[in-house]
Amino acid sequence: MYQLYIANKNYSSWSMRPWLVLKAFNISFQEIILPFPAERDTGSFKRDVLSVNLNGKVPVLLDDGLMLWDSLAICEYLAEQHPDQALWPKDVKQRARARCIAAEMHSGFSGLRNACGMNIRANLAEVGMRLWQENAELRQDVARIEQIWSERPQRNGFLCDEFSIADAFYAPVVTRLMTYVLPVSESTQQYMQTMLQHPAMKAWMDAAMQEDAWVNYLETYQQQQL
Amino acid sequence: MYQLYIANKNYSSWSMRPWLVLKAFNISFQEIILPFPAERDTGSFKRDVLSVNLNGKVPVLLDDGLMLWDSLAICEYLAEQHPDQALWPKDVKQRARARCIAAEMHSGFSGLRNACGMNIRANLAEVGMRLWQENAELRQDVARIEQIWSERPQRNGFLCDEFSIADAFYAPVVTRLMTYVLPVSESTQQYMQTMLQHPAMKAWMDAAMQEDAWVNYLETYQQQQL
Repeated sequence: MYQLYIANKNYSSWSMRPWLVLKAFNISFQEIILPFPAERDTGSFKRDVLSVNLNGKVPVLLDDGLMLWDSLAICEYLAEQHPDQALWPKDVKQRARARCIAAEMHSGFSGLRNACGMNIRANLAEVGMRLWQENAELRQDVARIEQIWSERPQRNGFLCDEFSIADAFYAPVVTRLMTYVLPVSESTQQYMQTMLQHPAMKAWMDAAMQEDAWVNYLETYQQQQL
Repeated sequence: MYQLYIANKNYSSWSMRPWLVLKAFNISFQEIILPFPAERDTGSFKRDVLSVNLNGKVPVLLDDGLMLWDSLAICEYLAEQHPDQALWPKDVKQRARARCIAAEMHSGFSGLRNACGMNIRANLAEVGMRLWQENAELRQDVARIEQIWSERPQRNGFLCDEFSIADAFYAPVVTRLMTYVLPVSESTQQYMQTMLQHPAMKAWMDAAMQEDAWVNYLETYQQQQL
């Protein structure tokens, strides 16, 4: 059985993506959570990750002696291993589009990522309002994401018709838009609702809400508010 | 026939990757160069790119009405369209590794990328020496790349045995290590030699050396030296 190493569901956006793909397509796997330490560079997190993966990051997928350490490569591997299911869309044009979307997220959007770290259980509306005014790169990233999302085939559907790896790659953005309450269009809000109703998305977010580990270096905004 | 839109061969590392893949596997394509403007946000570059691709970046691949705008997604598409050739390794384990390596490059190494922009025809040995002393993130990125390269199956071979998409993704690093003359191991130097002898790599670098367009905002180091 697959083993997927992830970090805290509240904070780890990279972990979220392959986990959602496994869940959404009912692929059995063992989940192994290596929680981030409360303070940077303390505890056993780094050592534990390094014991399975030399670049020291999660997620990691193990499959019978094979180790994959990149979230997009994990998803490509799963798509190959489960050709009966449409982890990527079956239609060649939709599949090309899905891969472009997912890979654009993989390599880009550092403005959004750096300013608005994933923190599912937090409410950072005031921080979000300030960031939105001050940070042009953040606004540009959100505008590009809204453009990508607006090109989905059905207004009440997923990015490339049925739920696929492409949606999993944008799932952390859905949570960020909620946490920071960024101003987005009605069409964007509708896609967010579609995502929030997906059982795999619900399962991850519920689990994140139940976590109580506080990771200090990922909570700089809430520290300012305390 | 495929149409591949790229920017200047001297500067555009993202353009280099799918171009090398097409050349290395003898896949016919039409090359369309949209040169960067001499000064940022001037000239017709942005307008020309936007006329084919809404996110305004190169490379872009057109195939009979289908448009792909991400270098990794382009390579995955080409691998699918040419299943008779090993754009990814045929062996499932080597293929998983090749995808992890390529995707890690796609999402990471911003320390190297930001400090050492690709500039094939330049000699920036002195700049490189200074950066190497001052920039810990750069040293970490190069160390991780040397680790990945050192795990290749054969010392005188490519990253996953035969030349594959994985090598194309690290090709710009080979040129950067030369331009900035960064101190690397013998094993790393041997891989660089292997790459530099590949006909596709030679063809790109020869063309880059013959370009004479000077892009001011990508030449900050040479300006300092003038």
